Amino acid sequence: MKAEIVAVGTELLLGQIANTNAQYLSQKLAEIGVDVYYHSVVGDNAQRIRDVLQRARSRSELIILTGGLGPTEDDLTKDVVAELIGRPLVEHRPSMEKIVAFFSQYGIPMTENNRRQALVIEGGRVFENRHGLAPGMAVQDKQDGVWFVLLPGPPKEMKPMVESDVLPFLLSLVSTSQIIHSKVLHFYGIGESILEDKIKDLIRQQSNPTIAPLAGDREVKLRLTAKASSREAAEQLLQPLVEELYRRLGKYIYAEGEHARLEQVLVDELRRRGETVAVAESCTGGRLSGALTSVPGSSAVFPGGVVTYSLATKRDVLGIPQHDLEQYGTVSRQTAEAMATHVQRLCRATHGIAVTGVAGPHELEGQPVGLVWIAWRLGDDSHVQQYRFVGDREEIQTRATKTAMFKMIQLLRQKG
Amino acid sequence: MKAEIVAVGTELLLGQIANTNAQYLSQKLAEIGVDVYYHSVVGDNAQRIRDVLQRARSRSELIILTGGLGPTEDDLTKDVVAELIGRPLVEHRPSMEKIVAFFSQYGIPMTENNRRQALVIEGGRVFENRHGLAPGMAVQDKQDGVWFVLLPGPPKEMKPMVESDVLPFLLSLVSTSQIIHSKVLHFYGIGESILEDKIKDLIRQQSNPTIAPLAGDREVKLRLTAKASSREAAEQLLQPLVEELYRRLGKYIYAEGEHARLEQVLVDELRRRGETVAVAESCTGGRLSGALTSVPGSSAVFPGGVVTYSLATKRDVLGIPQHDLEQYGTVSRQTAEAMATHVQRLCRATHGIAVTGVAGPHELEGQPVGLVWIAWRLGDDSHVQQYRFVGDREEIQTRATKTAMFKMIQLLRQKG
Repeated sequence: MKAEIVAVGTELLLGQIANTNAQYLSQKLAEIGVDVYYHSVVGDNAQRIRDVLQRARSRSELIILTGGLGPTEDDLTKDVVAELIGRPLVEHRPSMEKIVAFFSQYGIPMTENNRRQALVIEGGRVFENRHGLAPGMAVQDKQDGVWFVLLPGPPKEMKPMVESDVLPFLLSLVSTSQIIHSKVLHFYGIGESILEDKIKDLIRQQSNPTIAPLAGDREVKLRLTAKASSREAAEQLLQPLVEELYRRLGKYIYAEGEHARLEQVLVDELRRRGETVAVAESCTGGRLSGALTSVPGSSAVFPGGVVTYSLATKRDVLGIPQHDLEQYGTVSRQTAEAMATHVQRLCRATHGIAVTGVAGPHELEGQPVGLVWIAWRLGDDSHVQQYRFVGDREEIQTRATKTAMFKMIQLLRQKG
Repeated sequence: MKAEIVAVGTELLLGQIANTNAQYLSQKLAEIGVDVYYHSVVGDNAQRIRDVLQRARSRSELIILTGGLGPTEDDLTKDVVAELIGRPLVEHRPSMEKIVAFFSQYGIPMTENNRRQALVIEGGRVFENRHGLAPGMAVQDKQDGVWFVLLPGPPKEMKPMVESDVLPFLLSLVSTSQIIHSKVLHFYGIGESILEDKIKDLIRQQSNPTIAPLAGDREVKLRLTAKASSREAAEQLLQPLVEELYRRLGKYIYAEGEHARLEQVLVDELRRRGETVAVAESCTGGRLSGALTSVPGSSAVFPGGVVTYSLATKRDVLGIPQHDLEQYGTVSRQTAEAMATHVQRLCRATHGIAVTGVAGPHELEGQPVGLVWIAWRLGDDSHVQQYRFVGDREEIQTRATKTAMFKMIQLLRQKG
C-alpha cells in the first residue's frame, strides 16, 4: 500500500515546530509494512490544502493528514477533505457530549467554533481522542478507493490514538485477518553499525518477524515485529529470534519493552532487591544523580549523592585524605574507588558509584579529554574501570553517566 | 518571494530522522522575509524527485533542496536538477582539491563516486562546505527564473553554510542593497502568550525591525531583525525597540545573543566577579549541578554540591540538625535556607543555592506536588522564595532548576 503523510499547519512553515509527527507515523507505518513515498507540509489555506490533496490522491492509496482539526477558523482539514470526496460533515454525538462536558466542567463559555470539533465526515470511521477534544477519522473516497485518515496535530493526542486505534485499523486494510505484535530489545555499550554487522544474516533473511534497528540517545534498540493471526502466534514467531539475539548479544541487552531507560531499569532492580545506592560525581557533575532522580519513586533507592567538582570538596565533603588525592591525582583508579567507598558510607547506602574523569574541553592534571574512571562499590566489593570516551563535553558526560548505570545493572545481576 | 523546501532522502520517509532541516530553514527564511508555502520530503528516486520539483517550480520562485549530495548512487539531487533545467554538471576545482586532500590525508582509497561530490551545475553559484565534502550551490532556471538552492543534508554541514553564505545570497535576491541584522533577547519567568500580550502593539505595527517570538525549553526568545544598508544602520533601527522592550519587560530579560543559556550566563557572571557557588539539591536531584557543569570551565566557579534526597543525608552530609528537619519538615523555608547556608560553608563557596520541594508524582509530608522552596545565599544574605510549579515531574524539576539559576543571576546583578 502506497502512503503519504500531509501535515497541515502554518506554524510548521514558519519553523516554530518540526514535523516530528511525520517521523513518528513513518516509523509506525514501516512496522506494519505500509510504504511511505512522500511527506508534505502545507499551511492553513483551503486552496493550497486542496491542491496538495489532489496531487496526493493521484499517486497514493492512503493519505494520512495531521493537524487542522481544532476549533478555530484556521482549522480547515475536515472541510477540505469532505468537499474533495463529496461528503457532508455530520455531528458525532459522543464527541459533542465530551466537548459539552468539558466546557461545563471548567465553566468556560462554549462558542459555535467549539461545536465544529465534533463534526466528522459522514460514513467515516471515528477514532476517539482520549487526550483532547478533536476526534480523528478515516474515510474512503468511493470513486478512487483512496483512504484519508485525519489525525489531530498535537503529538500527545495523536500518538495514543495511533497506537490504540489507527494502527489496528490500518493493519486491517493491509491484511484482513492479522495482528502485529512487536518486542523491543534495548542495548547499551555497542554501536549501531557493529550491532547490525553482528546480525546481518538475520536482517538479510528477515520477513516475519522483521528486525528494525533504532538508534537513540547513545543507545540502540531493535524492534522485532511479527504478523500473525493472534498475539500468541506472534509471540511464538518472535521467540526463536529473541533467543538468538540473546545468544549473540546478550551482554549488551539491558531491557525489553517499549520505553525502557537505563535509570528506570537500575531503580527497579535496586527496589526489587531492597537496596540503595549513593553516587559521587566529578566529571559528570550531577548527571548521574539527575538521571536516577528522574525516575518517580527513586527516593526509595537513592538517599543522595555529592558532586565533588574540586579537590577541596573531594576532601571536605567526602573526607578523602588530601595526601591521597595529591599522590594519585583526582582522575585515577584510587580516587574513583575512594569516592565510591566514601559516598557509600557517608550516605549509609548499600552500594556506591563514583565517576571521575576529564570531560574537556581541556586536559586535566596531564590526563587527556575523555579519560574517565568509574568505580562501583557493591557492598564490600569494589570494581573500577577506565574508559576513553570520544566526543565533546556533553557527549563524554552523557556516556560516562550511562555507562555507570549500565555496568551497575550488570554487576547487580551478576551478583544475583 | 514564494519559496518551498524539498528534502531528499529515504531515511526521512522511514522515520529514521525528523526533517529538522525544514524547520531550521523556515525560521531563517522567515527572518529575511521569504515566505515558505510548502515542505516536501521525497525518497532517493529520480522519477519521484523530478515529479516533486516539476510541481514545485510551477508554484514557487525559490526551491531549496536538502540532501542527496553525497557520493553514493542514491544521491541524485544534482543530476535531477541539472537535467530539469538543461545544464550539465561540471567539476568544481576547489571542491575536487579538497576531496583529494581529504582522502590522501586519511589514506583512504578514493573511488569514482567520491569524485562525483565535486560536480556542480554549470553556471551556478557554489557554496563552500566547511564541515564536509559536498559543496552547496544555487542555480537559476533561465526559462522561468526559478532559483534552485541545493544544500547538504547533514545539519552540521548545512547550517554553517546557510548562516555564512546562503542567507546573504538569498537576501541579495530579495533586496539587492540591504543586509539583515538581528538581535535575540532571552526571557525567563514569563510565558509566551503573556509576553506577546504585553507587546502586541509592537508586534502589530512591526515592519522593520520585525519581531519574532520563539518559544524554547520553558523559555521565550524574541528575535528582532532589521534590514538596512549597513550593520550600523540596522543597529540604529533596532535600538529604540530594544530599549522599549527593556522598559516593559526588562526584569524577565537575562541575556542578549544568539545562543544564551541560563547556566552559561550564571557561570559567566560568577567568573566575572571571581566568586563561586555551591548547591544543595533535594527535588531537583542533581539537575542544577548538572546544568552548571555543562558549561566548559565551570570548575572555576563551582566547587561542588550535594544531592540530599533523604532526611538522613540532609543531616549527615549537610549537617542540618535532625531536630530542625523534623520540626520544619524537609520541604520548608527553614530547611531550604539551612541547606543553602550549610552547603555554602561545606564547599567553602562565596554563595549557596538550595532547592527542596515536591516533584511528584505523590505529595510529600502533606505538601502538594509542585510546591518548591528555593534559597539563595549571597555572602551573608539569605533570600528564600516559595513556588508552585505546574506540570509533571520532569517539568517541575526543570522549572525549579531554571528558576534557581535565573533568580541567582538577578540577585547577583542587583548586588552589583
